[in-house]
Amino acid sequence: MDIAKSLRASQYVSKAGSANAFGDDQLNVDVLAENSIRSAISRCPFIAVASSEEDPVERDVQIEQASASDIPEEHYTVAFDPLDGSSIIAPNWTVGTIVGVWQGKTALGQQPANNLVAAVLGVYGPRTTAIVALRVPGSEPVCLELGIGENGVHGAEVIRPAVRLSESSSKARYFAPANLRAAAEDEKYMTLITHYIQSKYTLRYSGGLVPDVVHALVKGHGIYISPVTSSSKAKLRRLYELFPLALIVECAGGTAIDPADGTNILERPLEDLNETAGLICGTAEEVRFARKILSD
Amino acid sequence: MDIAKSLRASQYVSKAGSANAFGDDQLNVDVLAENSIRSAISRCPFIAVASSEEDPVERDVQIEQASASDIPEEHYTVAFDPLDGSSIIAPNWTVGTIVGVWQGKTALGQQPANNLVAAVLGVYGPRTTAIVALRVPGSEPVCLELGIGENGVHGAEVIRPAVRLSESSSKARYFAPANLRAAAEDEKYMTLITHYIQSKYTLRYSGGLVPDVVHALVKGHGIYISPVTSSSKAKLRRLYELFPLALIVECAGGTAIDPADGTNILERPLEDLNETAGLICGTAEEVRFARKILSD
Repeated sequence: MDIAKSLRASQYVSKAGSANAFGDDQLNVDVLAENSIRSAISRCPFIAVASSEEDPVERDVQIEQASASDIPEEHYTVAFDPLDGSSIIAPNWTVGTIVGVWQGKTALGQQPANNLVAAVLGVYGPRTTAIVALRVPGSEPVCLELGIGENGVHGAEVIRPAVRLSESSSKARYFAPANLRAAAEDEKYMTLITHYIQSKYTLRYSGGLVPDVVHALVKGHGIYISPVTSSSKAKLRRLYELFPLALIVECAGGTAIDPADGTNILERPLEDLNETAGLICGTAEEVRFARKILSD
Repeated sequence: MDIAKSLRASQYVSKAGSANAFGDDQLNVDVLAENSIRSAISRCPFIAVASSEEDPVERDVQIEQASASDIPEEHYTVAFDPLDGSSIIAPNWTVGTIVGVWQGKTALGQQPANNLVAAVLGVYGPRTTAIVALRVPGSEPVCLELGIGENGVHGAEVIRPAVRLSESSSKARYFAPANLRAAAEDEKYMTLITHYIQSKYTLRYSGGLVPDVVHALVKGHGIYISPVTSSSKAKLRRLYELFPLALIVECAGGTAIDPADGTNILERPLEDLNETAGLICGTAEEVRFARKILSD
C-alpha cells in the first residue's frame, strides 16, 4: 500500500511540469497525466487492476520486468481521474488528480464503504500538495495533507497530520455552489443559494472539483454542492471522482451524500464503471441542511 | 523599460519557490515576495522610486553598485502588491502579483491614464504565467500573456500575443462576484447576482483578485465585481491593485470602472498612497450593465 501510494504521489511534480509545457493543450496534459500515473502503477506489484476516466475499462496491470519476481498476494484495484479541471487549465488556476484504491481485483459490485481503502487528491497549484486518506479495517481512519517537494514523494513533508472538517464556530463559513446555472430552473437550489448569501457565507468556487473540496478540507469547514435537477444531469463520475472524494471527506470527519436520495456516496455499490451522480459534501451539519432544503 | 520588466518577471519562479517552502506561513511568503521584487528593482537603473502594499511609502531606489555607473535619464516609479490572495494560499489555490510602472518619480498627483505606462500580473498556479500590458504615448497599447519557464524571463514564451476582452457570442458567460456577502444587505447587488444566475452565467470566483481577473482575460470575456455598499467598504488599493489591473483590462479592450461613480479607474489622480475603491471590470458591455443595475 505504501509503495503504491508513494509511486502515485511521485507523479505530482512531473505532472505539474507537463502542465508547464502544454498549458493550453488540455488534451496533451490529460494524456501526459494519464501516462504518468499508468507508468507509476506498472512499477507497483500490489496493483492488479487499473482504470481511469480517460480510459474507463478495468484492465490487468502489466507489471514491469524488474518487479515481476515478487508478486504479492495482496491485490488492489486503482481507479483515477488523471487531471480534473480542464476548463481552468488555460487561466492557470489550480487543478488536481483524484485516485481511489480498492481491495481486490475490481471496483464493480464491491461495497465502497468497506473495499475502498485509500484515496489521494493531488493538488497542482503554486505548490504541489496532496490530501491522502486511509481507511483500513481494524485501524482508525486517517486523513492528512502532504507537501510534495522537488524530489517527489521522497521530499514530501506532512503539512497537516490530521485534516478535519468540523462545524465552523465564529469564523467565515464557506460555500462552493457547482453548476449554479441549474438554480435558474430549480427553485430549491435558488433558495439554498439565497440562504447562503443572506447568511453571509463566503463564496469560494473555482470550478475545479479537487481545489473546491480541498479548500474546505484545509480551511476545516465548508460545503460543496453539485446538485442534480430536472435541467442539469448528474455529471460527476462515481468511480473516478465521487468515491475517492467521499472517502477523504469521511476520513476527515465530514459527510458526502448523493443529493438525489440523501444516501451516503459510499453506500451503493458500482454497477457500471461510467455511473454518474451529484454531490453534497462538507461538514456534517452543512450537508444535512443543504439536503433538507434541496429535498423539501 | 524592457530591463525593468525582465527583472520583475524573473521573480515569478523564485516566488513560486518561496511559496513552496513556506506555504502555510503567509507572512513569510509576503515578505519573501516583497524582498524578491525589491531586489529586482534595485538592479534596474530605470526605476527611481518604489512602493508596495507591504511598505506603502514612496522611497528612492538605491541602485546596486554594478549598475550605478550608467544611470539613465528616464525615470520610472514602480508600485506593487507582492503577493495578492493571502486567504487562498493555504489551500494551494492560484495567487498573483500586481505591478504598475509610472513615468516620473511619483505616482501621486499624476494622470493615471497618461503616466501609468506598464502593468504586470504575475500568476502563480500549476504554471507560472504573466499578463503584461504596455501603453506608451505614440504607440498602440499592447496586452500579452507570457509563460515563464524554469529559467525565469529568459525562458519566457509568448502564450497569447494579443489578450482581448470582447463580447461573448454563444459561449459561456463568466461572472466573478467579489464580496458576495454584501448582497445580503444591498438589494441592488442581490438583483445583479440574481440576474446572472437566471441568465445562466457561469460562476468562477476564487477570491484572488489576480486569478479572477486573469480568468476573464484568458477566456476572452467575463465580468468581475467588487461593489461598495453601505455595509461593505471599498477595500481594494487604488495604487497597488486597481490602477495596474485597469491598465491591463483597458489594453485588452475592456473597461474598468469605480462602482461608486461610474468613472474609469484611471481617470482620477491619486492623492494618497493608501486610497481604496471598489471595482467593476471586464468586457465593456458587461461593465455597463452591472453599473446600470448597481446605480439604478
